[in-house]
Amino acid sequence: MSMYAAPVAKLIDEFEKLPGIGHKTAQRLAFHILGLTSDKAMNFARAIVEAKRTIKYCSVCGDLTDTDPCRVCGNEKRDRTIICVVESPRDVVAMERVREYKGLYHVLHGVISPMDGTGPDDINMKSLIKRVGGGETKEVILATNPDVEGEATAMYLAKLIKPLGVKATRIAHGLPVGGDLEYADEVTLAKSLEGRREI
Amino acid sequence: MSMYAAPVAKLIDEFEKLPGIGHKTAQRLAFHILGLTSDKAMNFARAIVEAKRTIKYCSVCGDLTDTDPCRVCGNEKRDRTIICVVESPRDVVAMERVREYKGLYHVLHGVISPMDGTGPDDINMKSLIKRVGGGETKEVILATNPDVEGEATAMYLAKLIKPLGVKATRIAHGLPVGGDLEYADEVTLAKSLEGRREI
Repeated sequence: MSMYAAPVAKLIDEFEKLPGIGHKTAQRLAFHILGLTSDKAMNFARAIVEAKRTIKYCSVCGDLTDTDPCRVCGNEKRDRTIICVVESPRDVVAMERVREYKGLYHVLHGVISPMDGTGPDDINMKSLIKRVGGGETKEVILATNPDVEGEATAMYLAKLIKPLGVKATRIAHGLPVGGDLEYADEVTLAKSLEGRREI
Repeated sequence: MSMYAAPVAKLIDEFEKLPGIGHKTAQRLAFHILGLTSDKAMNFARAIVEAKRTIKYCSVCGDLTDTDPCRVCGNEKRDRTIICVVESPRDVVAMERVREYKGLYHVLHGVISPMDGTGPDDINMKSLIKRVGGGETKEVILATNPDVEGEATAMYLAKLIKPLGVKATRIAHGLPVGGDLEYADEVTLAKSLEGRREI
C-alpha cells in the first residue's frame, strides 16, 4: 500500500507471512519494531539469522538441533529400543515436557494428506523405516495428532512397521484429564469407551 | 528452557518480546522461521534491519518516514493551516485511510499518563507548541484516543494552544456507525447525546 514507506510496507509484509498473523497484527508488530532502539531491533534480526545458521535437522531423527546427532539421539541414557513418531519438532518439545518418555524420537515433518498433495514420500518416512529395520528397535509409538490425517499416517506406518517384527502402538485417545463428560464430543467419548481399561 | 537449543530459545524469546505474543505463539512463530528456506528467513531479518536503518522520525511532525520532511509535511497540496494531533504513527495511517483529511499531522508518540510516569516532557509536545506558535496554523484537531489518558492529554494541549489564538478542536465521540444503541456503554451513549446535532 502506498500509505507506508517501502521499507515499512516490506516489514509488514514479512510479518504477515507468519502463521496466524493478519494484516492488523503485522502492522502493530512492524510499528513496534520501528519503535524499538536500534540495538533491540538488531538483536531480533540477529536471533533469526543465528537460529537459521546454527539449527539444522538431526540426520538420525529429523528433529531441529544445533548438534548432529541431536541431544536425544546422542544421549546414551535414552532407551534405544523405543521410537516415538511425531509430526513436528514442536511435538518433541511437548513430549519432553512430560518427562515420562525416555526413548528416541522420529520427526515426520508433516503427515500424509492427499488433499494437500502430501504423499508418503513427502514426509520424513523412509529414514524411519530404515531405522526400524536396523534391528535395535522393539517398539514404535505412533504419536501423530488424533485427526484424520494423523490417524491415516499412523495406520500407514503401522502397516509398514509390523512386517519388520516390530511392535507398533498408537497413543491413547479419550477424555482429557480435567475434561467434562457432558461437553466431550461424540467421537472422543466413543474412543474413551473403546479404550476403557479394568481398574 | 533447557528443552531448546540456545539459538532457538533466543529466537522464541525475541518473538515473545513483541506485543500480544505469548510463549506458545512465540514458539509457533520461531519454529515457522526455522522451517523456512534460508532465503526467506534472511529476507525477514533483512526487512527488520532495512526498516530500522531507513525509517526515521520526521523532524517536523514526528511521524515515521524515509524522507525528511515526511511525505505529508513536504506535500505542498496539503492544507498547512490545520494540524491533526495523534498518539502514534499508526493513527496517521488510520486517518490517511479515510481520505477525508487534507491537513498536516503531529505525532505525540505517547500520551500524558502519570500512572506510567509519562509527563508532558516525555512526549513530542514541545515541537507542536512551537509549530502552532509559528503563525501558519489556524486549527489544531486533538485526535488522541477517547480514553482517560487521551482525554487528559487533549485537555492539556487545548489549554496550551488556545492562548496562542489558535482553535483547538476534539474529534467527536458517539456511537460507531453500524453500532447498536442497546449494546453501547453508558459513557459512549452519554457522549453521543451530549454531542447531538440538529438535522
